[in-house]
Amino acid sequence: METLSTIAAARRRREADRREGRTVAFVPTMGFLHEGHLALVRRARKLGEAVWVSIFVNPTQFGPGEDFERYPRDLERDAALLEVEGVDVLFAPTVEEMYPTKPVVQVGFSGLDAVLCGASRPGHFAGVGLVVARLFNIVEPHVAVFGQKDAQQALLIRRLVEDLSFPVRIEVAPTVREPDGLAMSSRNAYLSPEERAAAPVLYRALRAARAAILAGERDPLAVEALLRGRVESEPLARLDYAACVDRQSLKRPERIDGPVLLALAAHLGSTRLIDNIPVDPPLEASP
Amino acid sequence: METLSTIAAARRRREADRREGRTVAFVPTMGFLHEGHLALVRRARKLGEAVWVSIFVNPTQFGPGEDFERYPRDLERDAALLEVEGVDVLFAPTVEEMYPTKPVVQVGFSGLDAVLCGASRPGHFAGVGLVVARLFNIVEPHVAVFGQKDAQQALLIRRLVEDLSFPVRIEVAPTVREPDGLAMSSRNAYLSPEERAAAPVLYRALRAARAAILAGERDPLAVEALLRGRVESEPLARLDYAACVDRQSLKRPERIDGPVLLALAAHLGSTRLIDNIPVDPPLEASP
Repeated sequence: METLSTIAAARRRREADRREGRTVAFVPTMGFLHEGHLALVRRARKLGEAVWVSIFVNPTQFGPGEDFERYPRDLERDAALLEVEGVDVLFAPTVEEMYPTKPVVQVGFSGLDAVLCGASRPGHFAGVGLVVARLFNIVEPHVAVFGQKDAQQALLIRRLVEDLSFPVRIEVAPTVREPDGLAMSSRNAYLSPEERAAAPVLYRALRAARAAILAGERDPLAVEALLRGRVESEPLARLDYAACVDRQSLKRPERIDGPVLLALAAHLGSTRLIDNIPVDPPLEASP
Repeated sequence: METLSTIAAARRRREADRREGRTVAFVPTMGFLHEGHLALVRRARKLGEAVWVSIFVNPTQFGPGEDFERYPRDLERDAALLEVEGVDVLFAPTVEEMYPTKPVVQVGFSGLDAVLCGASRPGHFAGVGLVVARLFNIVEPHVAVFGQKDAQQALLIRRLVEDLSFPVRIEVAPTVREPDGLAMSSRNAYLSPEERAAAPVLYRALRAARAAILAGERDPLAVEALLRGRVESEPLARLDYAACVDRQSLKRPERIDGPVLLALAAHLGSTRLIDNIPVDPPLEASP
């Protein structure tokens, strides 16, 4: 595996891949890798002849008071894990390399970035859009793999690619979970043992809500109330949002009669966790 | 010359250029070509092995009440002119091809898009940014050539490329003028004979302001007053803006002690014309 830290070196290596006709599959990450990331890397391994992974804790997607400074980092361990997975290129630039000057260009999403996680994290998806566009233009992958855990991010990246015609195919891989259902996340490292024990409440709430829809519940407000109630039954959890929304518009439908996304965010202590599951309600029997 | 109207056909042709190792120089236009455009094409001919020109009257850069509908179009004549220049590929998509759905992604420029032309044309540069990003991702040129006549556009495109790391070099070619000094523009076709006779007042005002700076004037407000006075001396002209600004920040400096842009916009009847010249004030003698 080749580890590169400058844009110029990445472009040179990319040019070599191009000359030798290798397709490139790319997994952008913020590092501190877990099994969820490695599942994305394995998916990429199947999709491209060269696998590129980036590790960059992107300051522009953290708000003031968020955890940019304390976000966990361990490049050495990450590199060893990626080496084992047969990754070809690790691109790990510094903040100065990625943002030598304050960017002028702003990426917006017409309000799709102002709901769910975007409502609690203003500017977050603008930062994600900027860095992903930048990484796509540096790595120029054929395909890029994102995780379903960040469902809103995956949707917005799809729109970015579609609206700006990036020549990149987007793949979204399922959330990887701990045995007790907790979605894997680098931020799980922040949890105290008590918080860790309480954290699976998110997934349990999502599964209960899914079961209700599959059993016939069609009122999204009732589903959201169920989600909220389940999370709030856990004394260590403080709900941020509980949503039952259309998978494209991220708006709550009048009635659940098509695919929806059930999504949750909650604080456990000072750690904010998110989780979601897509649900396809069964077709209703004709009258 | 190959004329292509779909993104899929453009990508296929681009792939052939890539396979055969040809560098691509690109000139995006809105068509109704004049000598100014052809100068950009000749510049591109020197910069790339394959020359691509796009013709697309981009609706997202026109505001309500602007001239999108009546903007002059003549694809047949344009194609003949480009053929003569040895252009390799003309990409001329329909609006439906470029915008099959309403875009969600918004491109902003942190206020650099809200001054000069952006002040009179809200949303204009967001539309320009969107379509240029899209065209860059379709054509994937090595170099793209823009005209100095649209000075603010050229600056914002440079920022777009820099901030999003597009692997494209931007070249800006000098404004081409009619013998009487009027900057070439597709919109000159709108002018009545009387308006056409009055139109060179913009360039005369810019030259007078430049002469004042070269003669020692260092107060940008005095330079702007001079520009304004000259334009307003022409009864058929109605000034939109007269500016003496820093070439990077587009802000009026306290004092002219570095490179500035002199820029004007004025209406002649219902036609809005713009023009500008960059000025490098002479170094002041040491005391």
